[in-house]
Amino acid sequence: MSLNALHTPCLLLDKKKLLNNIQRLNTHLSQFDVQLRPHLKTLKSVDAAHYMLEDPSAPCTVSTLQEAKQFAQAGFKDITYAVGISEHKLPEVLDIQNQGITLHILLDSFEQAQFVHAFCQENDCKLSCLIEIDCDGKRAGVKPDDPQLVAIAKILTSAELFSGLLTHAGGSYECHNLDEIRTMAQQEHHAVRVAADRLRLQHIDCTMVSVGSTPTALLGEGFEHITEVRAGVYASMDLVMAGLGVCRPQDIALSVLTRVIGHNREKNWLILDAGWMALSRDTGIASLQYGYGLICDEAGHIIPELCVNSVNQEHGIVALPEGLDLSHFAIGTLLRILPNHACATAAQHAGYQVIFDDEIDYWPRFGGW
Amino acid sequence: MSLNALHTPCLLLDKKKLLNNIQRLNTHLSQFDVQLRPHLKTLKSVDAAHYMLEDPSAPCTVSTLQEAKQFAQAGFKDITYAVGISEHKLPEVLDIQNQGITLHILLDSFEQAQFVHAFCQENDCKLSCLIEIDCDGKRAGVKPDDPQLVAIAKILTSAELFSGLLTHAGGSYECHNLDEIRTMAQQEHHAVRVAADRLRLQHIDCTMVSVGSTPTALLGEGFEHITEVRAGVYASMDLVMAGLGVCRPQDIALSVLTRVIGHNREKNWLILDAGWMALSRDTGIASLQYGYGLICDEAGHIIPELCVNSVNQEHGIVALPEGLDLSHFAIGTLLRILPNHACATAAQHAGYQVIFDDEIDYWPRFGGW
Repeated sequence: MSLNALHTPCLLLDKKKLLNNIQRLNTHLSQFDVQLRPHLKTLKSVDAAHYMLEDPSAPCTVSTLQEAKQFAQAGFKDITYAVGISEHKLPEVLDIQNQGITLHILLDSFEQAQFVHAFCQENDCKLSCLIEIDCDGKRAGVKPDDPQLVAIAKILTSAELFSGLLTHAGGSYECHNLDEIRTMAQQEHHAVRVAADRLRLQHIDCTMVSVGSTPTALLGEGFEHITEVRAGVYASMDLVMAGLGVCRPQDIALSVLTRVIGHNREKNWLILDAGWMALSRDTGIASLQYGYGLICDEAGHIIPELCVNSVNQEHGIVALPEGLDLSHFAIGTLLRILPNHACATAAQHAGYQVIFDDEIDYWPRFGGW
Repeated sequence: MSLNALHTPCLLLDKKKLLNNIQRLNTHLSQFDVQLRPHLKTLKSVDAAHYMLEDPSAPCTVSTLQEAKQFAQAGFKDITYAVGISEHKLPEVLDIQNQGITLHILLDSFEQAQFVHAFCQENDCKLSCLIEIDCDGKRAGVKPDDPQLVAIAKILTSAELFSGLLTHAGGSYECHNLDEIRTMAQQEHHAVRVAADRLRLQHIDCTMVSVGSTPTALLGEGFEHITEVRAGVYASMDLVMAGLGVCRPQDIALSVLTRVIGHNREKNWLILDAGWMALSRDTGIASLQYGYGLICDEAGHIIPELCVNSVNQEHGIVALPEGLDLSHFAIGTLLRILPNHACATAAQHAGYQVIFDDEIDYWPRFGGW
């Protein structure tokens, strides 16, 4: 099957690159006594998940209860829902758990621990709770030295609801080089180790000590006293990861297939049939600007100096540099666009056209909450 | 039914505001001898379209062939596909037309006119073609004084494929006040009138002369020699439109319902369960910054000074101003977020929770190409 038969715009997934990326993180982590718990929020595809996890009993991570439900239905058994829990979501969490799934939930306040505790009493059930630790001041979590940490762990432990600690070095996306990422990985590990040590002094043991982000998973070393590592975008990679130096642009497995639908001769612009609806509005990181994505030819080779400079809903505009003529890109020409942020671009599509050797397969994905 | 029963995040559509917004444009245009051709790309909902169009035979506009197929299936008969055509899409265009639909297509080059002409000869069919006119230098289209215009019109006319002209004042989104929008509407009208006059000198008549964007539709006057006006976001409105002065923030019919899922006490931040996946990455227009959206209480009243300052995939962060305490927003509190860009935010969801009086209805929407 040829790409020319596909309707544009659509999402391409290069399976060989996907498998290489998956293998690379597996190989790196195999040096250490730590388990990978892949985050399935990027691709939201059961087919892709089967390549990211050894088997359905292996642990995984999700960002929505919809993902938890879908992956539970697909046979996955050990799922962490890595977004702070609200009371209104607990009945749904229990429903999923009652299907024979271990669904770990996340919290970072005494208030949340109280309502989870009350819910479990009322429903005569146990839920597996992780306390989120803030390792970089970027979002949520309890600081490792916060007095609340012990109070939260105690109320959970008293009801046998406490499983351990989880942190996410989202700050790693703002690093400027690999050394800074290595330092961020140490900071991430240090934060949960300090928190676990404080709990141990109170005779509270952590069964799970979870860290992770793609940059710190790939560059982290040692992982002493850490039980598992989470990473998601490592499987597809994207321009943000390439910009950080975590992969090369040619490692990116995901791209948007588009056709040239017009020329603005006065301005030397190509008009593409991929706008923000196909690419997302994600412009990556301020310090790493590729517009709305780098341009490759139909075969996937990057065309130097070309990116999608601006977008409307269903139009992308590529300003050709001086010396490059519109005649090189006749109307109808197929191009591929590498995504700034794989999670965001993939979310704009219903599935993947999966390229492997000369075959094209289709993997559906899902969305929603 | 209460909002408290809804899973968060989800998309709310206030039907009363929707109907008011629809009525407002209808009333404005009823002063002039011009037809409204609503653009259905914002809401992509058959239910909403039935309120935007008088009846299914009334004209409408779409941005994808998927929309054309879906609205054709729902009974709509006169559809303009307002994105430049590529040769590969013509078989699908003909399929839709063969269902008894008039599907107008758009082009702006001699090359496109040639392949449409050849396709119609090969398939012994007629397609209705509009030539796109560039009125503001922002994207695609032939300039009104471009010699190509006559050449394109002639090849189309020779095969009875020519229906008229279409332009879009996308530049109106960059206006700074209502007077600038009025001037932009005049510029939009002038561009197609000049182009139509040039064709008339060649004895080529335009059955359709189509203009439009929500700002220029609402503020345009006269509409002499123009047959129809396109507008899409006018039905829901959004913060970009409010920022332009085209509506008030309280007119916005669309919002994302979210719950507080955490507090960062050190930074006085609320953590919400609506991140970019629920809101989109659209930050509106550079000169009108509301972060990722303005915050309203559960009832829809804007809370002054609050917006979503930053987002991750499933987390929104609201930095509370000094003097406003986290205790006002307990974990579990429901809030609504007004969208920067309705088209982008709505595209992140599978449907609308439609609020009307004390009832909540559900309207599905679709995506894809």
